[in-house]
Amino acid sequence: MASKIEPRVLKGFRDFLPEAEMERRRFIGKVEAVFRSFGFVPIDTPSLEYAEILLGKGGGETEKQIYRFKDHGERDVALRFDLTVPFARFMAEHSGELGLPFKRYHVSKVWRGENTQRGRYREFYQCDFDSVGSDTETADFEILSMMVASFKALGLSSFHIRLSHRGLFNRFLAANGVSERSVEILRTVDKLGKIGEKEVQALLEGLVGADKALRILEYIGSKGDFATVAGKLEALAGGPGEDSQRLHRLRELIEGTGLSGHFILDPSITRGLDYYTGVVFETFLDDLPGIGSVCSGGRYDDLASLYTDQRLPGVGASIGMDRLLAALENLGGRKSSEGSCDLLVLSQDEGSAAERFLFADKVRLEGYSCEVFSDRKKPGQQYAYAEKRGIPLAAAIGAYGSLSVKDIRTRQTTDKVDFASLLGMLSASRGDA
Amino acid sequence: MASKIEPRVLKGFRDFLPEAEMERRRFIGKVEAVFRSFGFVPIDTPSLEYAEILLGKGGGETEKQIYRFKDHGERDVALRFDLTVPFARFMAEHSGELGLPFKRYHVSKVWRGENTQRGRYREFYQCDFDSVGSDTETADFEILSMMVASFKALGLSSFHIRLSHRGLFNRFLAANGVSERSVEILRTVDKLGKIGEKEVQALLEGLVGADKALRILEYIGSKGDFATVAGKLEALAGGPGEDSQRLHRLRELIEGTGLSGHFILDPSITRGLDYYTGVVFETFLDDLPGIGSVCSGGRYDDLASLYTDQRLPGVGASIGMDRLLAALENLGGRKSSEGSCDLLVLSQDEGSAAERFLFADKVRLEGYSCEVFSDRKKPGQQYAYAEKRGIPLAAAIGAYGSLSVKDIRTRQTTDKVDFASLLGMLSASRGDA
Repeated sequence: MASKIEPRVLKGFRDFLPEAEMERRRFIGKVEAVFRSFGFVPIDTPSLEYAEILLGKGGGETEKQIYRFKDHGERDVALRFDLTVPFARFMAEHSGELGLPFKRYHVSKVWRGENTQRGRYREFYQCDFDSVGSDTETADFEILSMMVASFKALGLSSFHIRLSHRGLFNRFLAANGVSERSVEILRTVDKLGKIGEKEVQALLEGLVGADKALRILEYIGSKGDFATVAGKLEALAGGPGEDSQRLHRLRELIEGTGLSGHFILDPSITRGLDYYTGVVFETFLDDLPGIGSVCSGGRYDDLASLYTDQRLPGVGASIGMDRLLAALENLGGRKSSEGSCDLLVLSQDEGSAAERFLFADKVRLEGYSCEVFSDRKKPGQQYAYAEKRGIPLAAAIGAYGSLSVKDIRTRQTTDKVDFASLLGMLSASRGDA
Repeated sequence: MASKIEPRVLKGFRDFLPEAEMERRRFIGKVEAVFRSFGFVPIDTPSLEYAEILLGKGGGETEKQIYRFKDHGERDVALRFDLTVPFARFMAEHSGELGLPFKRYHVSKVWRGENTQRGRYREFYQCDFDSVGSDTETADFEILSMMVASFKALGLSSFHIRLSHRGLFNRFLAANGVSERSVEILRTVDKLGKIGEKEVQALLEGLVGADKALRILEYIGSKGDFATVAGKLEALAGGPGEDSQRLHRLRELIEGTGLSGHFILDPSITRGLDYYTGVVFETFLDDLPGIGSVCSGGRYDDLASLYTDQRLPGVGASIGMDRLLAALENLGGRKSSEGSCDLLVLSQDEGSAAERFLFADKVRLEGYSCEVFSDRKKPGQQYAYAEKRGIPLAAAIGAYGSLSVKDIRTRQTTDKVDFASLLGMLSASRGDA
């Protein structure tokens, strides 16, 4: 006997069995329906690109994580590690053809060969939506309201979007003469949730001295209602400016559309990434604050400066799908049965197989899914199959086309069922589930 | 000014702009709806696997085409080149948990670094559906009827599925004492469409001599109605057997369900791949025979023998998505507007932005997609945007919430539109499209 190859997947990679895959698809279906309802359109880009394109000027962390190799033509290629860089390349190539503003979503896989911590995978979905070409508070608000609509579509109502403005923070840093350390300061402040205020203070003191560290802590620690905090930040940054005006107008939009309950102006939100220039935001679930942000993003001045001279300002967000799927399971929402099969047609001696297939077609035409059992196994084995698969009803076609239907959950059998009654049972069974 | 990186994709890889991506998603949505209606469930597997798993005992052509490299842990890994091998590994790992029969579909990307001919890509979708665990004519027929249902769902009615039986052909070869050359014979016969009968005859003569070459040509050249050809093949193979009985019962199912018009018993169909053991089939569009088979597959005895001792017989098919998408475009089906946006809300001085967003939400609640234009550009520019995007209607909210709606296609504007009338216009506009 030939030796077998051990069937296994690489660490950090996953098989999705039907239940998990259906759950993931329902998730994607719900958020994509929201994106489309806002007029956003889907795109796709290659999984594999020139490493030069993906790495750009080269980022230390990225370079370490990316799957990079030589292809058959000795080209230096890599698997995409996010959907933002390919989108920048895409816009540099196609913005003329597409026109501006351009609003797209992209839900697809990315790969990172990083060390796998708990809950980290080497292959995972990203779910991005961006609006490019308009530098306005309405474009900012559009993305924020899509986030609210997406969470609601997923059945979540207790969440808060914490936002702030990177441009305003930069102005505050400039007013305090510490602009040249802004990258380190931003990275330090970004760690607040992880390492706590004391530690951040110590790090900041090392960067800018005790006095300015305190001022930075005062800025990022500002708390209160949106208008109050906005006023305070504006004052700390040296008075009104385009950045603080943008925040005020954004607040008007949030209040005017009745969404205030979901938003907190939180100046400790900075997002570590360099390319943000305007609003930045993160989203936290009230019932699971520990899992961190489940949807983050912000405004950038210039999406594709690596590839084109055309300035492409935009704003976008990314939903942390794996994290949010885990959260939804944790919060114990009722499992949906959508996507599972409605009816099993039993295989038995009476009636012909052709009859069973024609009957199944008739059921499908009514919008129900219907599986025909292939083997002439004992009824008990066929019922057990239905139970394992979560199929609620099983139909047997007897002599002269007579129909009997067994409810797999109650184990009750109804004989001489006419087709209209069967449809009623199918409909009721979907409603029950 | 910093030098730019040229934005470009690798040869054989493609960006999907919104229109093409929506077309592809509609395609996938339609066939997946068919699969689900038959009780089939979706799965997913990693894009990247151990090279050992994907290459198995090593295949010459596969080895040349596969994207293979060392990962960060010096593991020998590769991108999947089809969905069959990962499915075999998946079943070896999970069949106990899943139970049998197991019916799955898998629509996902695969990668092949082959030389790019016309219409060949290095990244493309495969669309597979298989039923594993049942070795019956009903399981065979289920896959065949899903193929018919899928083509009909795609709006295609003029197509033929050409099928034959590999086991029966093998028995015929054994009866003629040429079993030991069966692999080469199968590969030669598989080239019939490409190189023609004369060339095939010459090759067969080289393999088995002139006499037996003629007999093979007689077998594969058998033509006529299903029953007649089945009878002839059975006779040429030495009389009735389980294989020919299976063909007869399959014919009864095809005839009994009224699908005879779509099926031809064609013994020249062999499918080159070694692992098929029962029925094999290919699908041709009557109006575009030149593009070759758009959906192929067959029955195999043992899906996962490389990874497990458990015998897993099954039957499956794979839709050639790229080929079929190109064919559908070629056949000039009416472009669907599904997925495009229904309404643009204009941005103007009158009314507040909050009002526009609230209005858009109200429209979305009615099931229509609605985009709010972000910038206060001139009306002409906003109309031009709607036209470019294919948005049929544009609404302007004036003083005191009064609504005027412009039909972008006819350039007619209707003033003082109430909400109910707007819904009527949206509904009519969807119907028109």
